[in-house]
Amino acid sequence: MQEILSMKNQKVKDWKKLHKKKTREELGEYIIEGFHLVEEAVKAGATVEYILFTERGKAEWQEWLVEQSEALLVFVSDEVMKSLSDLPTPQGIAAIVRLDEVLLDKEVAGGWLLLDNVQDPGNVGTMIRTADAAGLRGVILGEGTADIYNQKVLRAMQGSNYHIPVIRMKIEEAISFLLEKAFSIYGTELNKEAVRYNELPKSQNYALVLGNEGQGVRKEILSLTDKNAYIPIKGQAESLNVAIAAAVFMYYFES
Amino acid sequence: MQEILSMKNQKVKDWKKLHKKKTREELGEYIIEGFHLVEEAVKAGATVEYILFTERGKAEWQEWLVEQSEALLVFVSDEVMKSLSDLPTPQGIAAIVRLDEVLLDKEVAGGWLLLDNVQDPGNVGTMIRTADAAGLRGVILGEGTADIYNQKVLRAMQGSNYHIPVIRMKIEEAISFLLEKAFSIYGTELNKEAVRYNELPKSQNYALVLGNEGQGVRKEILSLTDKNAYIPIKGQAESLNVAIAAAVFMYYFES
Repeated sequence: MQEILSMKNQKVKDWKKLHKKKTREELGEYIIEGFHLVEEAVKAGATVEYILFTERGKAEWQEWLVEQSEALLVFVSDEVMKSLSDLPTPQGIAAIVRLDEVLLDKEVAGGWLLLDNVQDPGNVGTMIRTADAAGLRGVILGEGTADIYNQKVLRAMQGSNYHIPVIRMKIEEAISFLLEKAFSIYGTELNKEAVRYNELPKSQNYALVLGNEGQGVRKEILSLTDKNAYIPIKGQAESLNVAIAAAVFMYYFES
Repeated sequence: MQEILSMKNQKVKDWKKLHKKKTREELGEYIIEGFHLVEEAVKAGATVEYILFTERGKAEWQEWLVEQSEALLVFVSDEVMKSLSDLPTPQGIAAIVRLDEVLLDKEVAGGWLLLDNVQDPGNVGTMIRTADAAGLRGVILGEGTADIYNQKVLRAMQGSNYHIPVIRMKIEEAISFLLEKAFSIYGTELNKEAVRYNELPKSQNYALVLGNEGQGVRKEILSLTDKNAYIPIKGQAESLNVAIAAAVFMYYFES
């Protein structure tokens, strides 16, 4: 077991920068906070490089910590933990995890959620969590979509990235890959000339494209789909939150 | 048109305190920020007491502002607006609105969403917005639920409180009121012995009870309902976000 008590430690200096996407890509690692996420990462067999814990974390999760590989454990001071956390009150446990890029492989049968430029981290995280719960096969994060290793995305996902593949790639490429495998591709738009969501044929292999909070799915993408669908707004609200719309679509397909 | 440029103005001192629930109750008013909400409040006939705008707000919404009653308009300095706002960059327009308590009256036919101790303001606001969009009749906020006039709730609601009644009352009282009117009352729980949500009989007049993010709906409440239902979790996620679960339930009933 290592011990890092000083803020001047080079590792601490590096880890602090993991809140920036650029550093995460450069160092090939990201940070997760809180027992639930750390436990999920270990359980799922993610490449955990270090498990950091404070005095408080040790007291609270001692039983779990002793079961972990000695080489991974790093005792840190409260000051070090606080400097790595973006929470007002850090939980006392965190981990540094290798950023293993997931690729779209051959076994893709099932439902896929494709996110085109969805910017709010809370929305992106919630959508991945819902995709996991609803039983989808995986999620594709297109360009402009909040980064999966952003702390707010990680918190809202609650570990679902360790349950289903979450892949960063261009939406256009994902669509052409899935079309070749005879998937049905459905875009979503707020347009009454589109199909009502619950009139879409339920297919085993499908992809749903959800878009930006303000602009929706880009026109270029909507022209690549088999059909585009909408969720009826009966009241006076102008629109649905994008994570809510995604959930209604996903549970329609998976029920 | 009035002009308030000084931070020492008594009105400014009072309005700043409207971010506290206690002051809102005492003064019987609340503050809303941003053009969209102010416009919705005016359109809906809410009792708007003042419309505050800065130089920038004036430039951007001049056409709309000149259509408003002169007596409501208050030009404020950037400094005053900033002190009233909880946003990093205030939009330049806000309003002080009379807090008119809404009561459950006789015309209640339709679907109702009852929130038992839902604490996250973003969840509460999103649920009210979704209830509006899905065509529900109204929403009841039970004890412990985030206050409707909290800024984060107001932002997430996007004005839906001006479209459907949002009523603060005890869940127990709401249920007994609705039971007398022969409503079907459905609780929600993460329990596989409950009914699957899409096996619930669709009725015209119904109430759905959603509960706290961690604990769910209280047992005492679940014992008052006609049936309790759950949404199946197919993947490895432990649960759904409560606003997501509410949306799946509401769109099931309203489709």
